[in-house]
Amino acid sequence: MEKSSERVPQCPSYNRAAEIIGSRWAGAVVRAMLGGATRFSEIRDYINGITDRVLSKRLKDLESEGILTRRVFNDTPVRIEYHLTEKGRALARVVDAMTEWADDWMAAESPSPEPAGK
Amino acid sequence: MEKSSERVPQCPSYNRAAEIIGSRWAGAVVRAMLGGATRFSEIRDYINGITDRVLSKRLKDLESEGILTRRVFNDTPVRIEYHLTEKGRALARVVDAMTEWADDWMAAESPSPEPAGK
Repeated sequence: MEKSSERVPQCPSYNRAAEIIGSRWAGAVVRAMLGGATRFSEIRDYINGITDRVLSKRLKDLESEGILTRRVFNDTPVRIEYHLTEKGRALARVVDAMTEWADDWMAAESPSPEPAGK
Repeated sequence: MEKSSERVPQCPSYNRAAEIIGSRWAGAVVRAMLGGATRFSEIRDYINGITDRVLSKRLKDLESEGILTRRVFNDTPVRIEYHLTEKGRALARVVDAMTEWADDWMAAESPSPEPAGK
């Protein structure tokens, strides 16, 4: 068979993208922010089960990837808001597609419709 | 603010889906197979840079998730083919969305269009 790697080009950017959006809770954080959450506590309340420590880490990761920005307002007390960048908002399609696939195929009880190893 | 977790429901299946498709090379393997590759060597040739050991592991992972099946034909020499299940083929939308996002936003040189921390 002819080598056909041009049909699926070498794609480190894809791998990187998959790692970002695939890291635990990253998708949930983006979904929360697409839903309008801007404050740490709002984002946390959207996501059942995430700890403050993990959310903090994930927000930092996503900020360093240019997916969100962190803005500090010098109110009393200090107010911090998180906003998706254009790059972050562009993730909506990825998150939607993944949500739909998860809903269709990852429900705990549903067996695989095609028997494996057959 | 009212707790609004019902807008983004608790979603372990989403986290699980993100982990599967986000694991290194998993998306590339699915893309190769969506492109028609069925043999180990064909899949490897689609994906520049993956080692046999890693590809082997990834194929096993995806099989155990019901995303592909491994079929052994008792030819001489033994022939082994990998095929996406319906669940695996349904990943096309996710992979497409992620590819598009990566192409648009993850190109090595392109800076983030919105300055961070501003």
